Amino acid sequence: MAQVATPGQFRAIKALAFDAYGTLFDVFSVTALCEQLFPGKGTQLAQTWRIKQLQYSLMRSLMGRHRDFWGLTEDGLVWVSKNLKVDLTADKKKQLMDAYLSLAAFSDVKPGLEALKQQGVKLAILSNGEPKMPEAAAKSAGIRGLLDEIISVEEVKVFKTSNRVYWVGTERLKVSNPELGFVSANNWDGVAAVSAGLRTFWIQRSVAEVREELGFEVDTTIRAITDLPALLRG
Amino acid sequence: MAQVATPGQFRAIKALAFDAYGTLFDVFSVTALCEQLFPGKGTQLAQTWRIKQLQYSLMRSLMGRHRDFWGLTEDGLVWVSKNLKVDLTADKKKQLMDAYLSLAAFSDVKPGLEALKQQGVKLAILSNGEPKMPEAAAKSAGIRGLLDEIISVEEVKVFKTSNRVYWVGTERLKVSNPELGFVSANNWDGVAAVSAGLRTFWIQRSVAEVREELGFEVDTTIRAITDLPALLRG
Repeated sequence: MAQVATPGQFRAIKALAFDAYGTLFDVFSVTALCEQLFPGKGTQLAQTWRIKQLQYSLMRSLMGRHRDFWGLTEDGLVWVSKNLKVDLTADKKKQLMDAYLSLAAFSDVKPGLEALKQQGVKLAILSNGEPKMPEAAAKSAGIRGLLDEIISVEEVKVFKTSNRVYWVGTERLKVSNPELGFVSANNWDGVAAVSAGLRTFWIQRSVAEVREELGFEVDTTIRAITDLPALLRG
Repeated sequence: MAQVATPGQFRAIKALAFDAYGTLFDVFSVTALCEQLFPGKGTQLAQTWRIKQLQYSLMRSLMGRHRDFWGLTEDGLVWVSKNLKVDLTADKKKQLMDAYLSLAAFSDVKPGLEALKQQGVKLAILSNGEPKMPEAAAKSAGIRGLLDEIISVEEVKVFKTSNRVYWVGTERLKVSNPELGFVSANNWDGVAAVSAGLRTFWIQRSVAEVREELGFEVDTTIRAITDLPALLRG
C-alpha cells in the first residue's frame, strides 16, 4: 500500500481523467430534490436509486446488453419508486432526471483544476454518463473551459469496472497507461483503474468511507483535488 | 409479458436449474446470527453484506479478476464490518461464514423437487457459489439426493449475469436452451437467464418484491416451487 504521497512523486503523469458524479459534481442537489418531492422518503430513495443505477450498469455490461447511462438512471428511478411505493408522476420524473444536468461542483474542483491546468496537465472527465450528461453538468458547474476532453463509456458501450473504459482514457488523451492519472471519489472505481494499469488517486470525501475489498489498492488517498498540483509538480 | 401460465405450458422443458441462495436456501439464519453477534446492527449488516457480495461478484467479473464466491463473500463481510464499525473477530467471522454451509431449505423446496423428480425432470443447482457452498447447503437441507447436478460458476470463472453462466447449465445437463427452465427468486437472475435464451420462472417469495427494469421479463411468475409440477406436466 503506497498510501503516503510525496511532492513530485507523480511527475510522470501527463494527463488526469476525473470521474464525474461524486468526484467533480455533488449529487446532493438530487437528494435534496428527492426529499422535497417525496418528504420523509427522499433520502432513502436517493440512496437506493444510486445503488440501483450502479447495479444496472454492472449487470447490463455483464449481460452484454448495453443501454446508455441516461436510460438506466431512469430505469433505476422507476424501480426505486415502485419499490418504495411512491407515485412517480411524469413531471416528478422529469424534474429528477433534469437534476443530473445541473449539478454543482465541489468547492475544491475549480481551484484544483485551474492549478493543474497552469502546470500543463491535460484534464478530462472519464464517466459512465452518456455524453450529454457530463457535458451539461460541466457547463452548469462552470468548469467546461478547463477540460480538454469529456470522455464517455458510450465510445465502448460497456461500463466501469471494465478495463476497456479506462483504456479509452489513454487512447483519447494519447498517453501511456502510467502517464494517465485517474481520480475518483468512488474507491471501487479507482481500484478498477489500478487493475487496468493506471495511476490512481482516491478522493476520500468523508473519513467514514472505507476502502473496497477488491484485491487492489489505489496508489494514493487524497482529501481534495487541490492536493494534486503538488504531487504532480515536476 | 407472458405472466399467466397454463398447465402443461412448459412441457417442452426437460431439465430445471435452480438458483441457490434465496431460492432453495433460506438465508434467514445468517441474518439471525448477525443480529445475535452484533445486537442492533445485525439486520443492517446482513442486508449490506448481501448487496456487497453481489456487487463484488459483478465488479470482479467485469474487471476480469475472478475470485471464488467463498472468497468474495468473506471480502464483503470484512468491508461491511469496517463500514458499520463492528468488531469482526476471527471467531465471529468463522461463525458467519460457516452459516452459509448449513442453511435450511424453504418449505416448498422438498415437496416441489420430489414431485418434479417423479415426473422425470432433471434437477440441478446453478449457483454463483463455489462447489463446496451449494454442496454443503444441499446436504444440510436434506435435498442432495433429489439433485442430478450441482453446477457452479467456477466452471467458467465468471459470475451471473454473464450469458456464459446460464449456458453452462445447458451444456452440463445436455439440453437445448428452450429445454432448460431456470428458476430463481432473484428477479435480476431470471431476467439475465431470459437474455441468455432460457425459459424462466421467477419465484416471488414476497409480494413486496418488484420486477427489475433491465429490458427483459421473466416468462412466468410463481409463488412456490410446488407450482412447477403442473406447469411442466406433459
